[in-house]
Amino acid sequence: MQIDGLQYANWSEKIFRQMREGGVDAVHVTIAYHETFREAVLNLERWNRCFETFPDLITKGLTAHDVKRAQETGRTAIFFGFQNPSPIEDDIGLVEIFHALGVRFMQLSYNNQSLLATGCYEEEDSGITRMGRQVIQEMNRVGIVVDMSHSADRSTIEAAEISERPITITHANPHEWAPALRNKRADVIRAVTEGGGMLGFSLYPHHLKDKSNCTIESFCEMIARTADAFGTEHFGIGSDLCQDQPDNVVQWMRTGRWTKEVDYGEGSATSPGFPPMPGWFQDNRDFANIEKGLQTVGMNDSEIGAIMGGNWYRFFAKNFGPS
Amino acid sequence: MQIDGLQYANWSEKIFRQMREGGVDAVHVTIAYHETFREAVLNLERWNRCFETFPDLITKGLTAHDVKRAQETGRTAIFFGFQNPSPIEDDIGLVEIFHALGVRFMQLSYNNQSLLATGCYEEEDSGITRMGRQVIQEMNRVGIVVDMSHSADRSTIEAAEISERPITITHANPHEWAPALRNKRADVIRAVTEGGGMLGFSLYPHHLKDKSNCTIESFCEMIARTADAFGTEHFGIGSDLCQDQPDNVVQWMRTGRWTKEVDYGEGSATSPGFPPMPGWFQDNRDFANIEKGLQTVGMNDSEIGAIMGGNWYRFFAKNFGPS
Repeated sequence: MQIDGLQYANWSEKIFRQMREGGVDAVHVTIAYHETFREAVLNLERWNRCFETFPDLITKGLTAHDVKRAQETGRTAIFFGFQNPSPIEDDIGLVEIFHALGVRFMQLSYNNQSLLATGCYEEEDSGITRMGRQVIQEMNRVGIVVDMSHSADRSTIEAAEISERPITITHANPHEWAPALRNKRADVIRAVTEGGGMLGFSLYPHHLKDKSNCTIESFCEMIARTADAFGTEHFGIGSDLCQDQPDNVVQWMRTGRWTKEVDYGEGSATSPGFPPMPGWFQDNRDFANIEKGLQTVGMNDSEIGAIMGGNWYRFFAKNFGPS
Repeated sequence: MQIDGLQYANWSEKIFRQMREGGVDAVHVTIAYHETFREAVLNLERWNRCFETFPDLITKGLTAHDVKRAQETGRTAIFFGFQNPSPIEDDIGLVEIFHALGVRFMQLSYNNQSLLATGCYEEEDSGITRMGRQVIQEMNRVGIVVDMSHSADRSTIEAAEISERPITITHANPHEWAPALRNKRADVIRAVTEGGGMLGFSLYPHHLKDKSNCTIESFCEMIARTADAFGTEHFGIGSDLCQDQPDNVVQWMRTGRWTKEVDYGEGSATSPGFPPMPGWFQDNRDFANIEKGLQTVGMNDSEIGAIMGGNWYRFFAKNFGPS
């Protein structure tokens, strides 16, 4: 079983077919970065059209069972998530509404301060807000997973403490391997994994050691070392693949409507767009390279199966229903 | 089994308990008259709060099976519907979104012309619109039932023809028994029932012969006669009970935001508010009076069971899922 803990591709029949070729049984896809409630619903409507248009390639994922169903019918199960809580606006009632619409992950902040938590690019991290505590409780109740990928450290550690169910960092790597602002220090990874939570290893070049030039050996060594340190059962892949997106999408991700200025995020003035993916992970057909790489660094079949999808599957099974 | 095909009460623990006392296993409740998408979602959020607050009295209804589940656990299953298509605004994609949120009925118009069909108070009935045809097809696909209670005759007959699944008039009576503008002529009832559709007999005084003074004998005689003429299997109750609503709610129902003038609808300047219910049907505890009345007019137990809920149950089982 192969599950990707996060992608934000420019979805098309081509990519759906590549997921089939690559044996991707399930993927968590991003529905919103800065979207309002109504805009997020429009994005869900677009997915409904995709399900209607490509019923032989993809199917809507609501529970772990849908991953099995997808696998048995040769399709990819699509699970929805938000990278920012903007779609719930200031209304806690929208948490349950979005669960009914299939949303299964929500980041409490995206780089900036949100109504719920601090983002990883803020100078001050004031932790989980009053509304944040309420929303975590509501997410726990209905079965939407707290994702802290783009949140700041204190906020993440507090979220892990406050949440009565495991939380996740769907896409990031250990900071000590690649000291990007988005990568996570050991105490953050420990807070998440100790509560039964999971981290998905990211393939986004800005999160990789040597960025686009990162070697598969280095990436897989890092996985093996991290699994040794915190327990294999807490890790999966969250590729953060942004395939076929035009550069104005990375601008939307970085600046939304919150600034009139340019913000390069993890990029820079000289490389403002999406960075090129490493040669060994160009698209969904390349998961086998990671599997092979994990063998090379000495992981056994059962560990590799867990990292490639088994751990996410167990996590989905436990965390997508009402408490 | 007892099912009410439409109510719009000012919902409260008192009324939920009265439904239990009256043995109401399921009820179709109104979510919107003139609400926008966002406003309709807010109304759904209020119901979510009710389900959370009164789990021993009510439960969300999505399929016919939920009626059985409610019956077995001593609760009332709540099914959602719109009396107007205003919540889908101009966006056909919202049909599927609302199905996911539990909406199972939608009227194509409410008294006035809508984007989809003509309402029963318009002078000209231009039939189903271009968007109306598309939306009927989409409602058929996802499993939202077309309800023509407040639509005009030609629009209703056309909807019955265009729809590939049975349609309904959830709450109205035969025009020949009580010649209210909202009651339905024989050719309209025939168009709906011939396609396998259903009509729910209304207890709203403006739809009754002699209004609030209507006798239970007259009401039940009318039911027996109508069942004889069109087939018992096509009828149920759709009480249109608006219990405990303040008069500003009937104003909202009649005028929404579409006029600055007063519109009395089925009322008048001398009785602008909700009319008093007949003595034999004050609230949900009085369904037994109708059952007894139907015995008195000579219906047998199986016919009475069908009218009181069995027919709606079969209809729910056939029409709430994808085609």
